[in-house]
Amino acid sequence: MRYSKLFGKTKNQTPHDENSINAKLLLQAGFIDKVSAGIYNFLPLGLRVLKNINEIIRQEMNAVDGQEILMPCLHPIELWTTTGRDKTMDEILYRTKAGDKEFVLGPSHEETVTPLAQKFTTSYKDLPFSIYQIQTKFRNEPRAKSGLLRGREFGMKDMYSFHTSEKDLDQYYDRVKDAYLRVYSRCGLTAYPMAASGGAFTQNLSHEFGIKTAAGEDTMIVCKECNVAQNAEIVDEKNKSKCTKCGSDLIEEKAVEAGNIFKLGTKYSESFNMKFVDETGKENYVIMGCYGIGTTRLVGTIVEASHDEKGIIWPKTVTPYQVHMISIGLNEDILKESEKLYEELMAAGIEILYDDRSESPGKKFNDADLIGIPLRIVVSEKTLKEKSVEFKERTGKEARLISIEGAKQEILNFYK
Amino acid sequence: MRYSKLFGKTKNQTPHDENSINAKLLLQAGFIDKVSAGIYNFLPLGLRVLKNINEIIRQEMNAVDGQEILMPCLHPIELWTTTGRDKTMDEILYRTKAGDKEFVLGPSHEETVTPLAQKFTTSYKDLPFSIYQIQTKFRNEPRAKSGLLRGREFGMKDMYSFHTSEKDLDQYYDRVKDAYLRVYSRCGLTAYPMAASGGAFTQNLSHEFGIKTAAGEDTMIVCKECNVAQNAEIVDEKNKSKCTKCGSDLIEEKAVEAGNIFKLGTKYSESFNMKFVDETGKENYVIMGCYGIGTTRLVGTIVEASHDEKGIIWPKTVTPYQVHMISIGLNEDILKESEKLYEELMAAGIEILYDDRSESPGKKFNDADLIGIPLRIVVSEKTLKEKSVEFKERTGKEARLISIEGAKQEILNFYK
Repeated sequence: MRYSKLFGKTKNQTPHDENSINAKLLLQAGFIDKVSAGIYNFLPLGLRVLKNINEIIRQEMNAVDGQEILMPCLHPIELWTTTGRDKTMDEILYRTKAGDKEFVLGPSHEETVTPLAQKFTTSYKDLPFSIYQIQTKFRNEPRAKSGLLRGREFGMKDMYSFHTSEKDLDQYYDRVKDAYLRVYSRCGLTAYPMAASGGAFTQNLSHEFGIKTAAGEDTMIVCKECNVAQNAEIVDEKNKSKCTKCGSDLIEEKAVEAGNIFKLGTKYSESFNMKFVDETGKENYVIMGCYGIGTTRLVGTIVEASHDEKGIIWPKTVTPYQVHMISIGLNEDILKESEKLYEELMAAGIEILYDDRSESPGKKFNDADLIGIPLRIVVSEKTLKEKSVEFKERTGKEARLISIEGAKQEILNFYK
Repeated sequence: MRYSKLFGKTKNQTPHDENSINAKLLLQAGFIDKVSAGIYNFLPLGLRVLKNINEIIRQEMNAVDGQEILMPCLHPIELWTTTGRDKTMDEILYRTKAGDKEFVLGPSHEETVTPLAQKFTTSYKDLPFSIYQIQTKFRNEPRAKSGLLRGREFGMKDMYSFHTSEKDLDQYYDRVKDAYLRVYSRCGLTAYPMAASGGAFTQNLSHEFGIKTAAGEDTMIVCKECNVAQNAEIVDEKNKSKCTKCGSDLIEEKAVEAGNIFKLGTKYSESFNMKFVDETGKENYVIMGCYGIGTTRLVGTIVEASHDEKGIIWPKTVTPYQVHMISIGLNEDILKESEKLYEELMAAGIEILYDDRSESPGKKFNDADLIGIPLRIVVSEKTLKEKSVEFKERTGKEARLISIEGAKQEILNFYK
């Protein structure tokens, strides 16, 4: 992609009305645009990152036998009165009407997934199964001040599993917990599963995933030795110095909560009377689990966890492009060689953002650091004299010259 | 995918509360599930088709330099009062509130895309560009009785282009019209662009695309010779027999409208005061076009256009799986050979739905016809005696035996 043609360029100034690091950097670098508090447009760069994250999540959910579906945003109010969450979650619900038909904009999908799953569940032979979607959620958050970390409209992967027994749920729950850790790890994040209370969502056991960041909304207490972590909010003062498991020192880490998993048990199957016939012919309630990751929140979390004073530092796995190429100088040779290399790298399947503008070198370098692609390549009169290009990692201190001929292979090696 | 494990199986009965062919077949075959009138769940099979269609659209929009973005569903009401469409489209608008902040659920995105594009447009040098999204739309349709053809919540690709002149818009508009025809053709559909009035969306020139179907909501008048088509509603009675262009006979065809393109001109740029500075330093309003295809509607349209009395017939390009494999009989050899072939075909990258259930052959054959995958392969005692499998096209009358060894190549050839 030629940067001159890209929709959504960098801005010279940090936005005034955003406090969070993720919103500041993503807005200034041209990844997102603000529509209203907690409501954003995703521009081409931002959408590319979001899609990379979605694809990682999709692969890991498929690997634990999740089947992808797509449920609607509009939920008939009757589904929510059935569970009573029209009252318990009233504060954050967006509601709408069509004639005398009332709807809730889904903040979560237990109310739609349970009756759906019920239609295809009769016997124990139909169980277990697990279905998920990557979809838009709506929550009227009282404070939507953290950029993509707390949106009023946001992307989410929500998965729901259905079982014949607690034991089967427990085993599946642990598989998904591991899958979640793989998602975070593949996104370049350090995540800790923390036993937590489930809030309005459940009375039962749940975990949230704390992502280590320099600054975060939450604080977690982490054991230096055994990596057990807990949300500081639910830890007694007296348990804040030594690990209850191994006795080692505990440290406080700032964190962003970027995922939740819940053992729902029979809460929703009882509400909707979702039963199955077991091997003895007896009817039982289906046992459920649910598993959520905010996908747009994860974009923000990655920025919170991975940036420096110059801008974003994208992990290789989610970067919008693999290479940020800059041409310096406008003489014909430089343009010709840059074009040639651009075409050659694209032909090799390398995703490349080519800054072909007639801006100053300083502006181009600053924009590259702000945008945060892991690899930068510079073509200039100086490098061409050596039949080379400058090769610099976003996190590296020094640039080095590599031959133009070898550039393709160096890039492929970097991403291997 | 093993059919025994697939979420969303066929139903024995046609749904009672649906009149349209697309809803009846898609519901019975396990592609979708109804939540409320005009609101559906997409099950794994349905979502696979939708994703194939989305990918075809994405490729064709990228090919005309469209850049993909993602705008929100929640639109601040102020954007809609700015254009006055809060009044002109009032009937179909879903509205919601958060505190005293009012929102519209986007039935279309001119009101969000114009202020967004404005932020990145100053000079003629920033133009032209074209941005699109594949996103959920909300329209409170008074009659939502046509399954996926007229949804209250539905998927849509909407693209918006921005130009310095009418002439530039005209050229781009024609490019997109051709891209649309490629989309339909790749989806196995016969489409006619028809000049049309734009309804609430525009006062200016527009086209809708009529898809030829056995039964459809609309009627189009098509010239047998020059393929010019017009919506019957806007054709004078006296012009309904001979083509005004070439004088040949006209015929009536049932059609589904499956896309619209509009020359918006300066309607929205005037509302939002979106201007650019031209080469002489003068300020002008930006000229806009917009281009919509209902993506979920296209799933329904394909079913309307391509089915028989036994079920759906998916075009090769959008089929949820490439091969529907059936094993008949439960003896060990049959199961072993079926498993082996299933694994081998998957390893070759072939997408295969394997009906491994212990259902009767009749049930399995009927389900395969209902689901509509273009190719069926049967493994039975009879075929194994010949070291063969039965190979049948969904639209073919006869099955034929092909060697197990050669099956992979035959399938690859079929999809080449």
